[in-house]
Amino acid sequence: MAGPRGRVHIVGAGPGDPELLTLKAARLISEADVILYDRLAPPGALSLARGGAILVDVGKAPGRGPAQDLINRELVRHAEAGRVVVRLKGGDPLVFGRGEEECSYVLSRGIPCEMVPGVSSATGAPTCAGIPLGSRWGSSSFAVVTGRTAASGSPAPSLGALARAADTLVVMMPLSNLGAIASEASSAMGAGAPAALVLNGCTAAQRVIEAPISEIASAAAGLGPPAVLVAGAGAALRRRALGGAP
Amino acid sequence: MAGPRGRVHIVGAGPGDPELLTLKAARLISEADVILYDRLAPPGALSLARGGAILVDVGKAPGRGPAQDLINRELVRHAEAGRVVVRLKGGDPLVFGRGEEECSYVLSRGIPCEMVPGVSSATGAPTCAGIPLGSRWGSSSFAVVTGRTAASGSPAPSLGALARAADTLVVMMPLSNLGAIASEASSAMGAGAPAALVLNGCTAAQRVIEAPISEIASAAAGLGPPAVLVAGAGAALRRRALGGAP
Repeated sequence: MAGPRGRVHIVGAGPGDPELLTLKAARLISEADVILYDRLAPPGALSLARGGAILVDVGKAPGRGPAQDLINRELVRHAEAGRVVVRLKGGDPLVFGRGEEECSYVLSRGIPCEMVPGVSSATGAPTCAGIPLGSRWGSSSFAVVTGRTAASGSPAPSLGALARAADTLVVMMPLSNLGAIASEASSAMGAGAPAALVLNGCTAAQRVIEAPISEIASAAAGLGPPAVLVAGAGAALRRRALGGAP
Repeated sequence: MAGPRGRVHIVGAGPGDPELLTLKAARLISEADVILYDRLAPPGALSLARGGAILVDVGKAPGRGPAQDLINRELVRHAEAGRVVVRLKGGDPLVFGRGEEECSYVLSRGIPCEMVPGVSSATGAPTCAGIPLGSRWGSSSFAVVTGRTAASGSPAPSLGALARAADTLVVMMPLSNLGAIASEASSAMGAGAPAALVLNGCTAAQRVIEAPISEIASAAAGLGPPAVLVAGAGAALRRRALGGAP
């Protein structure tokens, strides 16, 4: 059981800019006794922590960092010691953030757990880049897939069907399989379908690479994460949104 | 041309809870000379405005409120008078928020325009309700469609195909066509596919109705917006995320 104050908040920190934290995230960070933070949580967010707070880097880069069950147990251990625990994650905790795994474990130990949404990189990075995902200019639907499933390391199996069905396709974590993703999306949407790769979205280092989907992998050669790929209608609408056409 | 300070920020206010505003949204609201706000912007957000700021309700409920081109012209008029203008919208401005229409118009008049992402209701409302949209427990993709397109008032034409292809389907503004949406999703996913309707997501009045997709319309009879419908894997995972299963 938790100590009298012990509880866990699973908090989304948004896509990169510390100013895109929510007011609630900022408040919880400033109140926390312990903060376990991710590789993708904006570094500036930790400056909001109070003096004396315990800050723990549990960033999971591929092939390093503690396993999920160790993080789960740490959340519980701190809460059972009566601490207010913030688990800070990039983006939104339930959009490929594993927040459900952590909250479920914490709740199963009788400890209160709250889920706090953040600006997901799936929508936030495109918006920072001026890419409309849902627009009456011509995108009445968008699909979000992971470019690297946890089980196989491959893109989501539904990628091709979704590229065919959705007006706009959004691929998260696209870089490690970018060639295969672009090839499948190209078959589904046509080789000339517009695509945009948003790198370091919503940060000072943001960069947007635009190319037809069939050429995006070579245009992006050598670039590193974080990245979000957008293909189809939304990518085509970027110029109109930003171009100042009347 | 804009006056020396004149500029426009198109700002997402998140799904409902004023604490889910971003720090940036809160700062821009507190600095603004003029705030044009939407029906779906959280009322509490306006309390952050400075004394003397001009607050304009341009809320567009179906059948009332000013037309889009009048809002566009008001943004330009205030910026040309040298004012810092915040256009505050529910959710995220580029996820069915028409931010692209307003920024494009403003830019075409030579006035600076910035797009500021918010927590989209498409992801935020499910997260507040404990519904994972992307999860290695079984949702490697999700599709977001509008339940009421601006052109026809009908659901997005791709709804059926996306319900078939995506692990999880998210329908925004589902209520006015809920019977038709549920029927099409039911054909695509099976009548017994789990569904959850999140009403007033991320507010004190949040309510979640869970039912098989074929029964969700009758379960939701008489209820009003705002609402987000989730069907498929994500809806099924809610119990596991919140149930505390180890």
